[in-house]
Amino acid sequence: MKKLINDPENVVREALEGIALAHVDQVKVALEPFVIYRADAPVQGKVALVSGGGSGHEPMHGGFVGYGMLDAACPGAVFTSPTPDQMLEATKLVNGGQGVLHIVKNYTGDVLNFEMAADLARAEGIEVEAVVTNDDVAVQDSLWTAGRRGVGVTVLAEKICGAAAQEGRSLKEVADLCRKVNDKGRSMGMALTSCVVPHVGKPTFDIGDDEMEIGIGIHGEPGRRRVKLAPADEIVEMLAEPILSDLPFKQGDSVLAFVNSMGGTPLIELYIVYRKLHEILTKHGITVARNLVGPYITSLEMAGTSITLLKLDDDMTKLWDAPVKTPGLRWGM
Amino acid sequence: MKKLINDPENVVREALEGIALAHVDQVKVALEPFVIYRADAPVQGKVALVSGGGSGHEPMHGGFVGYGMLDAACPGAVFTSPTPDQMLEATKLVNGGQGVLHIVKNYTGDVLNFEMAADLARAEGIEVEAVVTNDDVAVQDSLWTAGRRGVGVTVLAEKICGAAAQEGRSLKEVADLCRKVNDKGRSMGMALTSCVVPHVGKPTFDIGDDEMEIGIGIHGEPGRRRVKLAPADEIVEMLAEPILSDLPFKQGDSVLAFVNSMGGTPLIELYIVYRKLHEILTKHGITVARNLVGPYITSLEMAGTSITLLKLDDDMTKLWDAPVKTPGLRWGM
Repeated sequence: MKKLINDPENVVREALEGIALAHVDQVKVALEPFVIYRADAPVQGKVALVSGGGSGHEPMHGGFVGYGMLDAACPGAVFTSPTPDQMLEATKLVNGGQGVLHIVKNYTGDVLNFEMAADLARAEGIEVEAVVTNDDVAVQDSLWTAGRRGVGVTVLAEKICGAAAQEGRSLKEVADLCRKVNDKGRSMGMALTSCVVPHVGKPTFDIGDDEMEIGIGIHGEPGRRRVKLAPADEIVEMLAEPILSDLPFKQGDSVLAFVNSMGGTPLIELYIVYRKLHEILTKHGITVARNLVGPYITSLEMAGTSITLLKLDDDMTKLWDAPVKTPGLRWGM
Repeated sequence: MKKLINDPENVVREALEGIALAHVDQVKVALEPFVIYRADAPVQGKVALVSGGGSGHEPMHGGFVGYGMLDAACPGAVFTSPTPDQMLEATKLVNGGQGVLHIVKNYTGDVLNFEMAADLARAEGIEVEAVVTNDDVAVQDSLWTAGRRGVGVTVLAEKICGAAAQEGRSLKEVADLCRKVNDKGRSMGMALTSCVVPHVGKPTFDIGDDEMEIGIGIHGEPGRRRVKLAPADEIVEMLAEPILSDLPFKQGDSVLAFVNSMGGTPLIELYIVYRKLHEILTKHGITVARNLVGPYITSLEMAGTSITLLKLDDDMTKLWDAPVKTPGLRWGM
């Protein structure tokens, strides 16, 4: 296992300590239990947003804590759900009196633990709503999921809903908006290589030198099919077609096109993917009004890409453009 | 070779087309010859900054074109110097009447080609100055370099000098500042794995499963030594010590600490590196006044990291903090 780590058991703790040192003006880190939260939390009079999930997907979620996005993130062990006590602690740390929204990717452990944390928080008098993202069109039910997996749309929901909370919308409004973003977003990913979970020490799955997995999950869960390597343009078609037909996206739609690296794929390749995606969307009469290209929801060092399309309206577009200041996403300030 | 590409010969052109589509509000791309330049170029009355080098190091340099940083970048083939005609074309495209600064990483081909381009531009009446960066303390002379290689400090010089040009300083002032940034910055990198240049199709170098290369160059050039794998904290010591003793950095210094991914190393590991680096600097009585953590000068999908330290003064700190809006680095706007 070739990694820049010390003891595999300390990967998350040591990374959190690094994050706290690097972004001291933006975030604070609690170590018992692990929570990354806004340095100025709780922000009184604002709905608070909490997300979380297994580590290994950085910058998601901890890198999205800050002005205009999340108030807190709960990092679990690598590829492992955080625990209810982390989620409860995060909820209490950031509660500013207007309620807390939990944004939860659809993995069974995450969903159950966030439900338990929400119940515990409500018992302490905090109003909590939860929205589960499930935008991955690749497969119905998966290794750790009943229904569809939550993937790239989570990043977009956290940005858009974070902006809505920042401008003072109510818990119900922010939660409804989050459901809408999830409803209007679809994703699919693929992998060229596996990744190695530090405390496991060997690749999550085996894949031949001439093979790729279409429809991969962000923890290496099986996708739709294992096929021979193909040129990038063909791969983009394999991802775009199921996404487009699922919503379905239609001529005249305006979308945010998000091309994500699974971690090990260089930026130069992502732009080749984006080029073809833009061509396909244009051919369908779909306008790419906004885009995001880079590693935002990763799977450690896995080589591969995922595509997320979000059908925009004027409100979502305005909220996307609003200022954001987090370690992982920043503009306007 | 597992890559998201089409024809290896078209990698750079197709990526440039993707960049042009993704960042249409910020940059324009010329394809004959390849130049990425500010959408609002030439900015009249401002010194213009041009850099360039082989592709495969993204976001450097093309991702640093925009307000407050570079006016143009010349991307060569992967790991290959751009040509003088690219550099001349870039210089002419962005010349706003106050002269053009070429920022050149110290690789023999890059230096010669930028010299030729500067002569040609001067013959057309454009004032040109050039600064060569050579911050890599690992080795004296290398595979493609006489003297020390130019690496991470180039990113910092482009940001700081871009801000100086943006606020209206003269060509001489910006060039002197660039020399100062280079003089006050030192770097060293290491690799756990090689990378594969698309048109070569096989790893640039062989390295054992239990080995790493300390002092690696950004094109896989040999470093100081090939050693057995070690914990991250020991690796950080192996990189930090030669950097600290070279300038030398001293108790009471204020530095910008830049922890860079070579491409394939995930963010979670970079923060483990940053944690140890911060501890070492603190132990030496050195204040980390600013930092940058992420993949900014990469070597395709190579796993590894590099550390750059820059001794700051008030002017450099103010220029670092100034607004920047590029695809690869953005804050304050």
